[in-house]
Amino acid sequence: MRKGTLLSVRKDIRVVDATIRDGGLCNNFEFSDEFVKELYKANIKAGIDYMEFGYKASKKLFNVNEFGKWKFCDEQDIRSIVGDNVSDMKISVMADVGRCDYKTDFLPASESVIDMVRVACYIHQIPAAVEMIEYLHDLGYETTCNIMAISQIGADNLREALEMLCETPVDIIYIVDSYGSLYPENIEKYSKMYLEYANKSNKQIGIHAHNNQNLAFANTIEALSYGVSYLDSTVQGMGRGAGNCASELLLGFLRNPKYSLYPLLTFIENYMVPLKESGVVWGYDLQYLFTGQLNRHPRSAIKFTNEKRKDYCDFYKDLLDDSVF
Amino acid sequence: MRKGTLLSVRKDIRVVDATIRDGGLCNNFEFSDEFVKELYKANIKAGIDYMEFGYKASKKLFNVNEFGKWKFCDEQDIRSIVGDNVSDMKISVMADVGRCDYKTDFLPASESVIDMVRVACYIHQIPAAVEMIEYLHDLGYETTCNIMAISQIGADNLREALEMLCETPVDIIYIVDSYGSLYPENIEKYSKMYLEYANKSNKQIGIHAHNNQNLAFANTIEALSYGVSYLDSTVQGMGRGAGNCASELLLGFLRNPKYSLYPLLTFIENYMVPLKESGVVWGYDLQYLFTGQLNRHPRSAIKFTNEKRKDYCDFYKDLLDDSVF
Repeated sequence: MRKGTLLSVRKDIRVVDATIRDGGLCNNFEFSDEFVKELYKANIKAGIDYMEFGYKASKKLFNVNEFGKWKFCDEQDIRSIVGDNVSDMKISVMADVGRCDYKTDFLPASESVIDMVRVACYIHQIPAAVEMIEYLHDLGYETTCNIMAISQIGADNLREALEMLCETPVDIIYIVDSYGSLYPENIEKYSKMYLEYANKSNKQIGIHAHNNQNLAFANTIEALSYGVSYLDSTVQGMGRGAGNCASELLLGFLRNPKYSLYPLLTFIENYMVPLKESGVVWGYDLQYLFTGQLNRHPRSAIKFTNEKRKDYCDFYKDLLDDSVF
Repeated sequence: MRKGTLLSVRKDIRVVDATIRDGGLCNNFEFSDEFVKELYKANIKAGIDYMEFGYKASKKLFNVNEFGKWKFCDEQDIRSIVGDNVSDMKISVMADVGRCDYKTDFLPASESVIDMVRVACYIHQIPAAVEMIEYLHDLGYETTCNIMAISQIGADNLREALEMLCETPVDIIYIVDSYGSLYPENIEKYSKMYLEYANKSNKQIGIHAHNNQNLAFANTIEALSYGVSYLDSTVQGMGRGAGNCASELLLGFLRNPKYSLYPLLTFIENYMVPLKESGVVWGYDLQYLFTGQLNRHPRSAIKFTNEKRKDYCDFYKDLLDDSVF
């Protein structure tokens, strides 16, 4: 059963802009303050519901001199862009299980401009994610759990993880197609499975898609049609490797008049076009199609891209060789 | 009801490579013989079922000196590439209603290397298409009818056209998303509608998608999942404007072992990469997204592309102004 139609307004939909966070993986999080501030303003005008500013990464594990500041999302850095964020748009950050110091790096939510913390983990880290979610919930944050790389997880394990998350105060559970290997028919099955757990525990389901097979937008609207309501997008699909669902595709699709495409176009013209011209690269290309089809992490394809290689055949053959192991 | 699963082999599937025909709209049909011959060989190795060589356009309406030869597809030109086509792959050409001289330009099928003629028309040309289909069928050709721009046709008119086509000897009726404005949920509805007529008259349904909203591949596999069996694709999606469903995406999706991705990769590396580097442009970009979202012919977006404009906001505003009329 689909929820709503192509014409109807789904009041439960929330669009989450992840441009700085996922896009930051393309340029080492080195965005100018002006870029981030203008994106913040454009997102507000466009009706975006959440803007994710980056990661809360551990400064013990990562050297602050080697990354732009949005890898760490210090409170004062976000505030320098948003002030007290007097807008309807909420602020989000992502924290990876095992790669953050959540017990020391988060203020109580009442003292922070951050509204939501997205906890990203692999399946074996679910118990650690549960602890983090409980801790952050107690601090007063909205929380999500983004279980990554589900295309490599058996349904039994995934169901067990969903069962465990249902027992926590987590607000939203995300379907994450890390490898861009899922087809819309897979998304239908995952959406129904996740919603089965969400509906019985009063949680919402989100989707974070990757564009390795040019399906990020298609998979996002497939998921939403079944009732998934938190939709990740990035401007021009900017994100690691093949990138994500493009905000401009998604906003053009949604029928709620609160969403507006035009403010993003101004931002694209003034900031994204120069960013691309400066040499930052992301988006669908053959090498990502290969890793997506083979259900593999895109790291080798990213390396192929960075080396400006065009020998697709050799790359493909190497991938097939690797698949033996 | 879906037909088959993500893992099953659908023996009714036929992949139709339209690279030279739809891609020819990007370079005025000026492909080298070597390019066409290597594509022909790659398609055979890849298991492609039909290769479309171009249009059978009227030499009275179009000046042969102003286009590459694949706009006209003379018998001897095709034969210079394929000989007698001693392969399992069939040869197709497209003929537009009102823009061809079908009564003089087609040999009897038994004397031609062409196997299938695809008759493209707008809804008001259906009676003319019917005459053409009957004539070409009598000559011995397989025929299709590709009703274009269906996103601007009411369901009643479309049903009447399908009813009329059911009375003809046409073999395949195509769902054609000329403006790239259809979403997968639309495709589901069209697929079921077309298949309702096909099933009662023993015909097949095909899909020809455009990538204006990055949905060409998604829409193609959505259609096939409901039983559509003739699938148009082009290498790297080469086709007018935002282009088509990419063959490499489609072949990677299909599970029938007769299809093989690798021969196309060799062709891409040796011929498509240089073609792109020579300046031939196609593929998804914001301007096509706009015309797709607004359900408009892409011609203004193609002009925008050719003029290498990046003023997306002005272009979008102009489109909105035009929409009033």
